[in-house]
Amino acid sequence: MVQMRDHTLEELPLERSMTSGAAGYPRTMADLETPAVVVDLNRVEANISKLQAYLDGHKIANRPHIKTHKLPYLAHLQLRAGASGITVQTIGEAQTMASAGIRDLLLTYNVIGEAKALRLAGVARLVDKLAVAVDNEVALATVARAGELAKRTIGVLVEFESGKRRQGVMSPQAALDLARKAQGDHLEFRGLLTYPCGPGAASFIEAATTLFREAGVPLSVISAGGTPQMWRAHEVSGLTEYRAGTSIYHDRRSVAQGSATFDECALHVHVTVVSTPEPDRAVIDAGSKVLTSDALPAAMGAGYGHIVELPGAVISELSEEHGVLDLSASSDRRPLVGDRLRVVPNHVCPVSNLVDDVVVHRGGVILMRLPVAARGKR
Amino acid sequence: MVQMRDHTLEELPLERSMTSGAAGYPRTMADLETPAVVVDLNRVEANISKLQAYLDGHKIANRPHIKTHKLPYLAHLQLRAGASGITVQTIGEAQTMASAGIRDLLLTYNVIGEAKALRLAGVARLVDKLAVAVDNEVALATVARAGELAKRTIGVLVEFESGKRRQGVMSPQAALDLARKAQGDHLEFRGLLTYPCGPGAASFIEAATTLFREAGVPLSVISAGGTPQMWRAHEVSGLTEYRAGTSIYHDRRSVAQGSATFDECALHVHVTVVSTPEPDRAVIDAGSKVLTSDALPAAMGAGYGHIVELPGAVISELSEEHGVLDLSASSDRRPLVGDRLRVVPNHVCPVSNLVDDVVVHRGGVILMRLPVAARGKR
Repeated sequence: MVQMRDHTLEELPLERSMTSGAAGYPRTMADLETPAVVVDLNRVEANISKLQAYLDGHKIANRPHIKTHKLPYLAHLQLRAGASGITVQTIGEAQTMASAGIRDLLLTYNVIGEAKALRLAGVARLVDKLAVAVDNEVALATVARAGELAKRTIGVLVEFESGKRRQGVMSPQAALDLARKAQGDHLEFRGLLTYPCGPGAASFIEAATTLFREAGVPLSVISAGGTPQMWRAHEVSGLTEYRAGTSIYHDRRSVAQGSATFDECALHVHVTVVSTPEPDRAVIDAGSKVLTSDALPAAMGAGYGHIVELPGAVISELSEEHGVLDLSASSDRRPLVGDRLRVVPNHVCPVSNLVDDVVVHRGGVILMRLPVAARGKR
Repeated sequence: MVQMRDHTLEELPLERSMTSGAAGYPRTMADLETPAVVVDLNRVEANISKLQAYLDGHKIANRPHIKTHKLPYLAHLQLRAGASGITVQTIGEAQTMASAGIRDLLLTYNVIGEAKALRLAGVARLVDKLAVAVDNEVALATVARAGELAKRTIGVLVEFESGKRRQGVMSPQAALDLARKAQGDHLEFRGLLTYPCGPGAASFIEAATTLFREAGVPLSVISAGGTPQMWRAHEVSGLTEYRAGTSIYHDRRSVAQGSATFDECALHVHVTVVSTPEPDRAVIDAGSKVLTSDALPAAMGAGYGHIVELPGAVISELSEEHGVLDLSASSDRRPLVGDRLRVVPNHVCPVSNLVDDVVVHRGGVILMRLPVAARGKR
């Protein structure tokens, strides 16, 4: 693996320049206006390093999904640590990342239609290596059209179903049939892909590997993804590549699923208590517009996030700008209006999509405010 | 009421100029890239007009909540139709609307702290009339500080609880105690406010009216809000003002609650079918990043939106960019990859917050692409 260095501020000109402070911009957490989305760069680097070491140890390529952070800065950190390329979910994300100098992209989405082919062609011309996942012929035709427009070869991965019941071809034979159509002047079939790494992944891969070998169609890539299953990726025989997104920040779901500890969570929503109408009820200034309405399965925990300072509180209801705290089962101290708290969101990826920028710090020293460059990019 | 005229494109220079077309921008719906958030201006105007007529008929002031659309253009249409002012939920929304020339604002949120006082002061200096709702002394002190910084008088409404159990003082006496503190060089107590117009509103208002009269504290405003209860606002004795947000667009919840019909829904998410892995399952290119994860109570309907063309389909699962359609209970035709569909979202307000712009049309002719100016403004 590539070892991440233990940086000092002086070593990082970008960070150093930012710490000298934009006019009027807070230097300390206590001065940040809430709600604020705050990223701990030390924890981010530790999370990047840990996953890279694990995948290096098992000779699985690391292709992190940038939908979680949507920040070119962090994508470059992931590549510097040893990632082979990145994964994006929309053409807009691909455009943003390609424009930020990233040269190896995998788009894991069925793109459909001429307008998207035109945009995809623009990406193809900007990067060194582009692949797109498809599960049907209409999407494949769009990729072919993009390759033709760009006069570049675009790689194709066929997506298969492994248990999520979202999309993906349903059988190895269907994968082979589609793979055989992924030929042409500007198309190159590269392999198979699934999301997440569901219970059906191993048996599908085994059957498909046999079928494709017998058919004489090489499989150079077999790619799976998802943070919950990532520490068991080595148990799936044949995987060549892993795509994890959430793992860079982690979230309450990561902790509930055993993929991380709360100490490893690198993104917090800083909030203020704005009302305490009753002893067992308080209101924070973070609602669905920053925490999202994403819930967890009941067994993983109630409510819309974990409050570091009040672990017994349940964020029981969200409006767009309000979060209602149910303190009735909590033995924590009762918060006061004006208190500041930190929330680990249930699901961190859509939080990045809700804010125009995130505040980045090391050990409580604010380094910079990073625009979420790929926010909202469809 | 102020009657909305039946505009022609020629009468509206802004619209006419936009229909001549930005370079390369689609003129027809079929050319729009999906997912797209599309607003029908004829329906918007009909919805504005209908609510204004109802409230005019009952001599209740109309102060629409702009959190739903976040568009200065539509806020000005609401004012031109007869609204007395607008309601905002964040200082960022207030700044955006004040900067767009709107002169009468009500901020229905407890603002806390010096940084927010500074921003609120800036708004106070820009508008003719500003009021803020509070339910505690810390928020009241912030409003007082803003008034002092701005050297302007800011109105204060005391928020009370009427059944939502979010925030608001719990008794008429608590309201009176807080109202008495809303005095000072730059504060003016104006009345009471609640959200929504819950089952406890009428009895609270009756008791508070007596208590405040006996105490010699005048109540010039009694304000309630919420689209679900709006057509019954006249049944609540003493209301002087109504704040509805969703009613300008309506959504699946509006229809389920009987506040509107699907024909009155003015905002649709246009989507494309991107996968049909099995006969009873299809995938659309709209997930939680455009539809949000907001669900309805089970009795109001399953899934994450209503598909106009496939009313029997259930949007059963959302990822960030995927919506899975469960067609197993549907007698609709089976969609094909590439088909375009229109979705009425469960809850329309957070949809506006997710997109950088909306596409505005009249009768299918695209007029303009409006930036969602108050998107993400905290």
